[in-house]
Amino acid sequence: MKTRAAVALKAGAPLEVMTVNLEGPRDGEVLVEIMATGLCHTDEFTRSGDDPEGNFPAILGHEGAGIVREVGRGVTSVKPGDHVIPLYTPECRECEYCLNPKTNLCQSVRTTQGQGLMPDGTSRFTTEDGDPILHYMGCSTFSNFTVMPEIALAKVREDAPFDKICYIGCGVTTGIGAVVNTAKVEPGSNCVVFGLGGIGLNVIQGLRMVGANKIVGVDLNNDKKAMAERFGMTHFVNPSEVEGDLVPYLVDLTGGGADYSFECIGNTNVMRQALECAHKGWGESIIIGVAGAGQEISTRPFQLVTGRSWRGSAFGGARGRTDVPKIVDWYMDGKIEIDPMITHHLKLEEINKGFELMHAGESIRSVVVY
Amino acid sequence: MKTRAAVALKAGAPLEVMTVNLEGPRDGEVLVEIMATGLCHTDEFTRSGDDPEGNFPAILGHEGAGIVREVGRGVTSVKPGDHVIPLYTPECRECEYCLNPKTNLCQSVRTTQGQGLMPDGTSRFTTEDGDPILHYMGCSTFSNFTVMPEIALAKVREDAPFDKICYIGCGVTTGIGAVVNTAKVEPGSNCVVFGLGGIGLNVIQGLRMVGANKIVGVDLNNDKKAMAERFGMTHFVNPSEVEGDLVPYLVDLTGGGADYSFECIGNTNVMRQALECAHKGWGESIIIGVAGAGQEISTRPFQLVTGRSWRGSAFGGARGRTDVPKIVDWYMDGKIEIDPMITHHLKLEEINKGFELMHAGESIRSVVVY
Repeated sequence: MKTRAAVALKAGAPLEVMTVNLEGPRDGEVLVEIMATGLCHTDEFTRSGDDPEGNFPAILGHEGAGIVREVGRGVTSVKPGDHVIPLYTPECRECEYCLNPKTNLCQSVRTTQGQGLMPDGTSRFTTEDGDPILHYMGCSTFSNFTVMPEIALAKVREDAPFDKICYIGCGVTTGIGAVVNTAKVEPGSNCVVFGLGGIGLNVIQGLRMVGANKIVGVDLNNDKKAMAERFGMTHFVNPSEVEGDLVPYLVDLTGGGADYSFECIGNTNVMRQALECAHKGWGESIIIGVAGAGQEISTRPFQLVTGRSWRGSAFGGARGRTDVPKIVDWYMDGKIEIDPMITHHLKLEEINKGFELMHAGESIRSVVVY
Repeated sequence: MKTRAAVALKAGAPLEVMTVNLEGPRDGEVLVEIMATGLCHTDEFTRSGDDPEGNFPAILGHEGAGIVREVGRGVTSVKPGDHVIPLYTPECRECEYCLNPKTNLCQSVRTTQGQGLMPDGTSRFTTEDGDPILHYMGCSTFSNFTVMPEIALAKVREDAPFDKICYIGCGVTTGIGAVVNTAKVEPGSNCVVFGLGGIGLNVIQGLRMVGANKIVGVDLNNDKKAMAERFGMTHFVNPSEVEGDLVPYLVDLTGGGADYSFECIGNTNVMRQALECAHKGWGESIIIGVAGAGQEISTRPFQLVTGRSWRGSAFGGARGRTDVPKIVDWYMDGKIEIDPMITHHLKLEEINKGFELMHAGESIRSVVVY
């Protein structure tokens, strides 16, 4: 079949919207009509050429929602008409990782996914001239239609709006999941969140949902304050306005240190501050942000020996097929909010404008609606 | 009263055995006759002058066992004749830390203890000329008689031999506790232990006790192999004999990485290796060793984002008054061994020889018996 898609032809170039060929689903695969997709910093990381593992040409996009249109042989968990959210971290429920309750990092299709291929080692996309185009993060939601492995689709309720729940495919789950699945924050905890972008806001509303006490937001931009307060931030700190060192200031503000701190930026210096503002004896610091290639974190080991833990979270520790439908329910039940974070709706033809809004800091999330 | 003690008069000097004055116990304090004391690297760290927080003159020693001889006003948990193990990490059961089940780092007497003083800010020791001598780690077990806070004494069974259970006052609990309390290692886990000194051996026997599967010991000295095997090590690795990088070698040996790794040396480069050999998705690395002042650990944050945790352990995460008596029971019940690790018995007058044996690598533990 033919489908419209925004294609990243080479590193650093704007995406080009064009018609491409899409082969139907093979065994264990599913054809999905993407109804909406968010634009995430990770897409931009790859588009820009900064991602050392980026492959081109490729159809980017990994934060979508859509409808199953056709299933390949052997597919049993979804059927045509089902509403689904694509999962860049699949859940096969069979590999060593899926069978270990301590992790969500299903490894079943990791190698081929990293190469931009379906699990059988081939691509379903080609140009109209027949040249291959790669998949991206197993999703390629910047195409109106895409093919995905069955194990990478979370079936969700049908009354949820696509242009909102697509954000659950990455940002919402990454932030809320870090609170709920990775840190397992207890009610009454005092927490510090570094970076009040989309991930930080979702960490904050996750903390509000689980009953955290102090929810301290840290950002250099005072314009972030109002929105963060809307999602549950109780204290705002702009490091450029703090006299003296930030870490002791935060330790004091939280009454001895953060029970949990979250780094949502990808800055290795901030990761150190996040660890060191954690409470002696039991504070845990969770790294969510993605640092630049080769950058390293450092601290004195005394910080750990005196009881702090340094951890990380990927896709919010969520097992997608199991946990993503729950988060959709939380949204529909009003336990969490998404609507105010979807600041811009775009057509596929306007997709490059979405990256401009991202760089200008004008959007929290831009969503392409097909 | 008068007591014999080995006194550290100044940094870097040998200890001097002499008679000193000891004032009786004040409110909440206890006079203990020390029957035996181990010589620990931490004592040597302070004696040598390397410890930036070392104070002199002081009576070192923190790994003892003895008998209560007199109690001050208000003391209710021990009485004259009770057998006790001094605790450099006390357990007041009242402070914010004791009331948080996530930590063992009781803070109730921390400030004065760090200054070498009893909780009321004074010392009980003086020279025969009347000059003050400081306490050390709240214990000063290099004195035949010492005064300690009640909250820093674990009451233990009376049939346990002092010259063995004194080692539970530090090394045994530090190693076994890191397995049992900090890491909470599950049966069947694959583990890597860096450094096969006294702490490493106790980690290894802790792993054996809880039913670990592979117990890999890593040490540059092949002479450590036989003793470590005696305590439960299943695989020995000498990094100088490994072709290529150590980390992938250990990941391969453990079938994907260590479920738990333990650094028992105090070397920040080894701490990084210990983290990076932990299993993707769920491996935890526990720092036990004490690094030199100002040294830092580093890694790429990707190591944490992909599911590894970096943690530390002090006094094996043990709440001393509660947990130390249990470890004495484990020893008396044959669940753990101590006897082969007590390689040398010394008289107080020979105490400096104990430090020489430590430096020469000839002892696992030297014990002074009074």
